[in-house]
This record gives sequence, C-alpha cells and structure tokens, in this order.
Amino acid sequence: MTVADIGEFGLIDRLTAALPADARATTSSVALDIGDDAAIWRPHASRDQVISTDALIESVHFRLDWTSWEDLGHKALAVNLSDLAAMGASPVLAVVTLGLRGDEQVVDLEAMYRGMGALAARHGVVIAGGDIVKSPERRMISVTAIGDVETGRALLRSGARAGDVIGVTGTIGASAAGLRILEQPHNYQTRTTAPKLIAAHLRPEPRIEAGRLLVEHGASAAMDLSDGLAGDLPKILVASGVSAVIEEEALPVIAAARALFSDSWRELALHGGEDYELVFTMARDKFASFRAAAERQGITVTAIGSIVVLDSGEPELHIRHENGHVEALPMGAFDHFG
Amino acid sequence: MTVADIGEFGLIDRLTAALPADARATTSSVALDIGDDAAIWRPHASRDQVISTDALIESVHFRLDWTSWEDLGHKALAVNLSDLAAMGASPVLAVVTLGLRGDEQVVDLEAMYRGMGALAARHGVVIAGGDIVKSPERRMISVTAIGDVETGRALLRSGARAGDVIGVTGTIGASAAGLRILEQPHNYQTRTTAPKLIAAHLRPEPRIEAGRLLVEHGASAAMDLSDGLAGDLPKILVASGVSAVIEEEALPVIAAARALFSDSWRELALHGGEDYELVFTMARDKFASFRAAAERQGITVTAIGSIVVLDSGEPELHIRHENGHVEALPMGAFDHFG
Repeated sequence: MTVADIGEFGLIDRLTAALPADARATTSSVALDIGDDAAIWRPHASRDQVISTDALIESVHFRLDWTSWEDLGHKALAVNLSDLAAMGASPVLAVVTLGLRGDEQVVDLEAMYRGMGALAARHGVVIAGGDIVKSPERRMISVTAIGDVETGRALLRSGARAGDVIGVTGTIGASAAGLRILEQPHNYQTRTTAPKLIAAHLRPEPRIEAGRLLVEHGASAAMDLSDGLAGDLPKILVASGVSAVIEEEALPVIAAARALFSDSWRELALHGGEDYELVFTMARDKFASFRAAAERQGITVTAIGSIVVLDSGEPELHIRHENGHVEALPMGAFDHFG
Repeated sequence: MTVADIGEFGLIDRLTAALPADARATTSSVALDIGDDAAIWRPHASRDQVISTDALIESVHFRLDWTSWEDLGHKALAVNLSDLAAMGASPVLAVVTLGLRGDEQVVDLEAMYRGMGALAARHGVVIAGGDIVKSPERRMISVTAIGDVETGRALLRSGARAGDVIGVTGTIGASAAGLRILEQPHNYQTRTTAPKLIAAHLRPEPRIEAGRLLVEHGASAAMDLSDGLAGDLPKILVASGVSAVIEEEALPVIAAARALFSDSWRELALHGGEDYELVFTMARDKFASFRAAAERQGITVTAIGSIVVLDSGEPELHIRHENGHVEALPMGAFDHFG
C-alpha cells in the first residue's frame, strides 16, 4: 500500500498511530490534535503558544514563470500566518528552511526575503533564522510560524454547535479564478479584473485581525480556507460532530470571478483553494456584534448558513442552490496524492 | 551572482540584510541572531522558548539504500533536538513536514514515525502535527523542534572569554568514520567495530542532558558539532571575538576510528561532521565540577584546549599537534554549495 493509495489524510492517521502514546499530541497535555491548523502548547504560566508549518515546492505549489520571487516570499509566510489567524493567534516569529539548487541569483533570493520581510514587519513577526539546504531539482521553501493567544482561547475546529451561524470573511473564489487566468492567459489576461484575481492567488493576505476578533467575540470554531469551502468546512463538521446547511445565494463569491467564469464560478467558490479567508461558526446572538467589529476594521463578514444536527447523526454538508434544490456535497477534501 | 558563488553563509548574511529592521532577529527583543543554533523568544512571564529547524533531503543528507526508514525518522528529529541541547533547552514538541513522491510504502513511513516517536518519547517530546506535501523527485523531511530553558539562561555562541577551557562531550570522528565505511563497504564492513561507527552516523543521540548540565554549571558558550570541530568551533570564536588553541593529543577521537583509519583519523576528527556532540567553553574553575556531574549521568567530557586572545585581535583557531608543532586551521565551515 503506497501513499498514493491512501492519500494525505489516510497517511496522517496512520503516522499518528505509529507514534508511541507519549509522543502523540492527542494524548498529551502539551499540544492539540494533529488535525487542527496548528498545534498549541502552554509554556508554564504564559499565554498559549501556537505553531504552524507549511512548505511550498516548486512546480507543485508555485511556478517561477508566473510567480515573482518577492511574491513567493510573501506567500510562503502568508499561508503560515493564515494558519495562526485561524486559531486566533497573534504571530510572533517565523523560521525559514530554503531548499536551493545553488544556481539561483542572490538578488532573486533577496527579493524573496524582501517580500517575506514586508509582510512580517506589517504583522510584528520576526524572521528568526532557519536552515538552507541543497535541493538539486526543485526549490522548496518551508516556513514554521509561532504565535500566541490568551490561555485556553485558541479557536479550534471542534467547537461548532447546532444553531450556530456559519460565517466567512472577505470573498471566496478569487484565488482559484486567478490561478485559472494564469493557466490560460490568452483567454483572460486582457480582462480588467484579471490583475486583482491574479493578485489574490499570488499574494494572499492572512486574516490575523479577523482571527483576533473571532476570539474576542467567542467564535465556537474556525479554520482558514486553503482547500475551498467544500473541502474545508467538512473538517469543522467532522471535528465537531455536526452538519451544515449553506445557502448558495449567500456565498460571498467575488464578483469578478462570477462575471469572468459564468459557467464555473460555483466550482471556483466551493472547490477553489487558497483563498486564505476564515470560515467560522458562532452562536447566532453574537454574530451581529462580531460583524460590526470586523467591518470597523475593514473586513467584510458574511453569514452563509447554519450548523444543524441531522437524524443520521453523521456529519454532512448540504447546500441550498439558488433554485431551492438542496444537495449533499461530498465530504472529502482535495488530496495532493489523489 | 549565484548562491553557489557566495555559499550558504554568505547567503544568510545577504538575506538577513534584505529583511526590514523590524523583521530582523538581530534588532528585535523577541529573538536572537539568525547565527545561533536556534532562535529564542520569551512569551511574557514564562521560561524562554527555543526553536530549531533542520531539513534532510534525499541523496543530499541521506541515502535510503543504507539508511532504514526507522533510522531516518530518528535522525531527522535527533539533529533538531541536538540544536536545542546546544542551547541548553529541554525539548517540548516538534512539527514535521514530509515531502513525498507518493510511491512510498505506508509501512515504511510508519517505521519512520516509530523511529522518530521512540526518540521523542525518551525525551518527553510530542510530535504535534505538520504538513505533508508532494515532492516528485526527492523525499524531504523537515523538522522544527521547540524547547524551553530558564529565562535568560540559554547557551549562546557569543559568551566565550579568554582563559575559558574548551570542552567536548563524548567522542568525535565516529560519524564520519561510519559514513566512510558506508561509502566503501567492501573495505571495512567486516571489521568488528564497523557497526558501532555506522550507528553513530545513522542514529546520533542528541546531548539533551549535557546541555542542561552546561546551563546549570554556567558554561559561557556552546554549540553542537554538525560540521566537525574545525568547522564549528570557529563559529564560537567569531561570535565571541576570541581565539582558541586546541591540543591534538587531547582530542577524544573514538578509538575505533583511530584504529581503522590510521592515516586519516585527524581529518575525521577535525573535519568529519555529524557527531552531534557538544563543544563548549567554561571558566576553568567550574570545569571539574561540571565534568563530575556529567560523568554521573554517563556522559564523558574532555578538555581539549583554551580560549585565548591573540595580539592580532582576529579570531583564529590553532592546533598543537602531537609533535609539538602549532598550526593555524582555516576558519571556514563546510559549505553545502561550495
């Protein structure tokens, strides 16, 4: 049986089980389950510390023919800060491992660090070292970011309860639309909205402030959208043991994607990855005050549905289409080895 | 100018300079210089937290024809715990990023996690998640480990002072000798000492307890030996602005390497990497009590020389050979892009 046979998520389960109980996060007081966006530990009397790690591999996660080195540096840090935002943590520092062939221009790598550094400085993050290794074929950039959050207040995936409203920050579908434009430049690159969509793909902005506000306003669960709403929301449903009904007409699909891809915008909105917005659940009576606080910070927030408990007891994700028809969406996320 | 032109250490300097001052560890209160074995930060009123990250790339850092998956898991964690040991920190948790082709056998990866898990459990470390990415050619395993240490007590490279004794834990040269045996099995593999030397290369043991004792006994500087004594000790000398004289006859070269490689054991001892022992400096009057405490824990410790300040003021590393001749060793460490 190979990795391709059982996929990324099957593999995670098998590897966790291969650890001795003492070294497993699930049975330890130090850290949370391997399944959340990041792990948490509590150094003595302090605030909780949160750690996230994400790697980008050349031609798997990025292509240098359409990604500038500066944008690559931005994105490598941004996807990690997004994981911290999803837990409601404030980022503190990051370490960077670079896998390089050796033929890279130093000025390109400096541009990468400028891109990373600008994002870091905006969020008070220090780039605190790392490792540089030889990677003869593909470049690799792996970032580990640390944040902190008030003790016991980190946002988990497991807290969604029946009756909670489901919300999303910002818009969805922009990054996937941008990727499609990059893949088919002759069809779309002249459209006036193309640069904005492409930028959403190349330079996602982590929702740090929204994560903080979600903690403050008592969200019950949250995560960031890296695999698309239909890929990620099920992770909250499974972790919380609940189901969801979302309303297609409420989805905050970015207008430019809807206009440019009139046949496939639903696909982009539900299955398009890398929006790095936050999806969350929250008791209904807290939602209006959270939304108002977010909007004061310039962050739009949209209610897209509700948490329910079905008779079957099994977690399911239902979508009510604009024509009123209700469809059960498959619960699996995108598997990189599928 | 490419990475190969300026090398790993030149690149680190350039990349650090490319960061805005706010995001640079050297100018921040949150973390130490990028040049130490690991970065440090202080979450509020707590103990200091230390973070280390190290990646292993297939056919660059390991070969699966002579490394078992279980040993690979052990070593990937061990090299990171060694960085924490070098700072005197006690490891708490680690996150793991795997770059996989997809054709790996799941049982092999489980074996890797068993190897990592056994080492983790022995040192009270929790494997708290990570990331699995597609890496189409070479496998990659990148580990980030976190430890903690009493506030302000982490061992740095910059504290060595004239008159300090220079000490080394355990023996040196074993890992490089083991690597040479693996590279030339027909010449050496039948020798009775071969398995022990090979094991030193494949399954290094991080010197966690020695690191703790170095903190307790007031060591002035420390680091772990990954690039060989002649490659690593200069990093302490440069960081501290001092020089050193070491005695060839005092070097704790493992006897098996001396016997097997009678022509080249000096080379293995001085330039052979990956021993993952600790080299440290300490005021002379503290040394005996530290050595006694270490030996009670089964850790041998050897004084190999002294910190001095030369008239030139420039850091230099001198070795007094067994024949009495004193030689100045080159100060550069092994460069993976050289």
